[in-house]
Amino acid sequence: MIGAGGVATVAAFKIAQNADVFTEFMIASRRKAKCDKIVEDIHKAGYKLDIKTAQVDADDVEQLKALFNDYKPELVINLALPYQDLTIMDACLACGCNYLDTANYEPKDEAHFEYSWQWAYRERFEKAGLTAILGCGFDPGVTSIYTAYAAKHHFKEIQYLDIVDCNAGDHHKAFATNFNPEINIREITQKGLYWEDGKWVETEPLEIHKDLTYPEIGPKDSYLLHHEEIESLVINYPTIKRARFWMTFGQQYLKHLEVIQNIGMSRIDEVEYEAPLADGSGVARVKIVPLQFLKAVLPNPQDLGENYEGQTSIGCRIRGIGNDGKEHTYYVYNNCSHRAAYEETGMQGVSYTTGVPAMIGAMMFCKGLWNTPGVHNVEEFDPDPFMEQLNKQGLPWHEIHDGDLEL
Amino acid sequence: MIGAGGVATVAAFKIAQNADVFTEFMIASRRKAKCDKIVEDIHKAGYKLDIKTAQVDADDVEQLKALFNDYKPELVINLALPYQDLTIMDACLACGCNYLDTANYEPKDEAHFEYSWQWAYRERFEKAGLTAILGCGFDPGVTSIYTAYAAKHHFKEIQYLDIVDCNAGDHHKAFATNFNPEINIREITQKGLYWEDGKWVETEPLEIHKDLTYPEIGPKDSYLLHHEEIESLVINYPTIKRARFWMTFGQQYLKHLEVIQNIGMSRIDEVEYEAPLADGSGVARVKIVPLQFLKAVLPNPQDLGENYEGQTSIGCRIRGIGNDGKEHTYYVYNNCSHRAAYEETGMQGVSYTTGVPAMIGAMMFCKGLWNTPGVHNVEEFDPDPFMEQLNKQGLPWHEIHDGDLEL
Repeated sequence: MIGAGGVATVAAFKIAQNADVFTEFMIASRRKAKCDKIVEDIHKAGYKLDIKTAQVDADDVEQLKALFNDYKPELVINLALPYQDLTIMDACLACGCNYLDTANYEPKDEAHFEYSWQWAYRERFEKAGLTAILGCGFDPGVTSIYTAYAAKHHFKEIQYLDIVDCNAGDHHKAFATNFNPEINIREITQKGLYWEDGKWVETEPLEIHKDLTYPEIGPKDSYLLHHEEIESLVINYPTIKRARFWMTFGQQYLKHLEVIQNIGMSRIDEVEYEAPLADGSGVARVKIVPLQFLKAVLPNPQDLGENYEGQTSIGCRIRGIGNDGKEHTYYVYNNCSHRAAYEETGMQGVSYTTGVPAMIGAMMFCKGLWNTPGVHNVEEFDPDPFMEQLNKQGLPWHEIHDGDLEL
Repeated sequence: MIGAGGVATVAAFKIAQNADVFTEFMIASRRKAKCDKIVEDIHKAGYKLDIKTAQVDADDVEQLKALFNDYKPELVINLALPYQDLTIMDACLACGCNYLDTANYEPKDEAHFEYSWQWAYRERFEKAGLTAILGCGFDPGVTSIYTAYAAKHHFKEIQYLDIVDCNAGDHHKAFATNFNPEINIREITQKGLYWEDGKWVETEPLEIHKDLTYPEIGPKDSYLLHHEEIESLVINYPTIKRARFWMTFGQQYLKHLEVIQNIGMSRIDEVEYEAPLADGSGVARVKIVPLQFLKAVLPNPQDLGENYEGQTSIGCRIRGIGNDGKEHTYYVYNNCSHRAAYEETGMQGVSYTTGVPAMIGAMMFCKGLWNTPGVHNVEEFDPDPFMEQLNKQGLPWHEIHDGDLEL
């Protein structure tokens, strides 16, 4: 596993809990001390799995290759930054490793994500007999598997898909992002996009929003965003007439976001800046990306867990033609408590809902259930064993048949 | 003159306009190119004064001394940063130069201003036969001179003093500060302070505010802040029972300020940060003060002039016992148009209202009118010739006798 942030911590805990499947495990990241800390916490919690750690710069293919050739992993779980997907995939190809990630590649200098860069690796993974599993977190990931499950068991034809993502948690900070603030702010400040009648429709950032009612939570203002799983789902389920993604934001969050943009701190271009060297040996002219510097002063998402109350609720609201030939609706979702996630892994619910599916995807691969050479989005695999594990591994799901979807 | 920002640009224009008084002139700053640009603009505008320029780091007493010993100025006009007041005063003492500034010293690592540091130089300036004129901008500066003028001509006893500072301009930016954003934000985010019945009363930041009506502008929500001229005025006019300072802020401005604090970008402590070197030769660990970095991404106050509409209105509202033994009120103020300031000097009204008084103070010194060895706040000098020049140099003042002060 590459990465040692909140999601990686959760995945590592869950891997340690499933030592019958995961017999050998290494955590590598830019700072080895962070990996060692995760291992220490896991062992303190009573799990016995022997876990190796290593230092690696995931931007550097040669370093990755050296590590992979040394450790010889069967599967590389990429929980590093989206910028690093391609270097890690390159190293996997070079060293004969299978691959799994939770977020698609985006270039560092452009706030823009799409699968094309990673799909371009299809033929090479296929020829090498290697499996690459893309987008195996919660959204993308579980939401795509929910859709595959609905298509397999409940619908002849999925026509309308709305993925709804609510975080009704309260971390008691004036402002904080729930995952890497840089990635979070890039995602939210870009234009909205949804699929309708065979083409993409663009909106201004956060232009479309409406109140949606979430189970055990109630109504929350939800904003239409572009989200990566829509891109592969409309290809894999061509009967879909309209696919959208919605996420809740509070007024306080949006106010902070607006100001961050107004004051220039969401900029992703480099600003030249002169600053004293930390070792006191003089001054240096450095290049600073404002959004990356902002990340250094905002609360670390990994530190939000302790007083985080409330829960997340993420699911798929689907309308289409059922197996009986009639129109049906279907809502499948999970609610996750921030406090329960923290008590189990020391991380809040947003990290938990991403890290657990990453582990389950790795389990699917290791058990030989999701093992098809090539580059695949998760909905291309059998959803049933994954759905079974969600109930066992802390992310139980619930179904509402023929309810009011509000959409 | 040390400094090459917006205020310095205005002061330089006004000095060039008064070449009968200012026969020799040098502009020095950390970046000589900025000084050369000011000279170029002044000459383009048709003024003939020969102006020298030089490079100097105002944090470095030795560099300052070398420059002063070389150029041998009679008066050093300090329009650099408040952090640099003491190094410049030290160099003036060492080289036998007189001194003038517009803002009192504050240490870099503490958002706190007071005169004690500069007043501690009194005896040394006195012994050296040198004059130091402190706080000769608009506020402090003109507001202190307005008070001195009121005391000289209209009041036997000043009892209540309210300095009111309104900027009703619109620069058409989502957020920008009107002068150095670092200094501006430090000033506003500290606790409020006012003088009443012989002691200082502290308030939470921006806790006290009320609508005040400004001439030609109308009512504007005005916030009680600590401002440095109050500190010397209550000493020089001991009959004052209460002295306060008020400044207008719009809701949009305050919203941005709140968020800037919430996200940690108003912090003035150092954050260690790793960044690539600008010359591409590697990475460096540097120390960055978030508020200073914010300054690098916010609009430069010097660039606000072009589309700046509306005007500033700054004055003193005074109540006390008049020369006839009866209670009187007196409101003396100036309104300054951002557009007119820009057309004359290329800078907006906030720079203009500070730079013009700095020039007039220097003129008072050069004419031998304000020439008393020691360290002095401006109200200690004769206000009459200064008030006369305000009318001639672009900052005419108006009086309202026995009107409603609202305070």
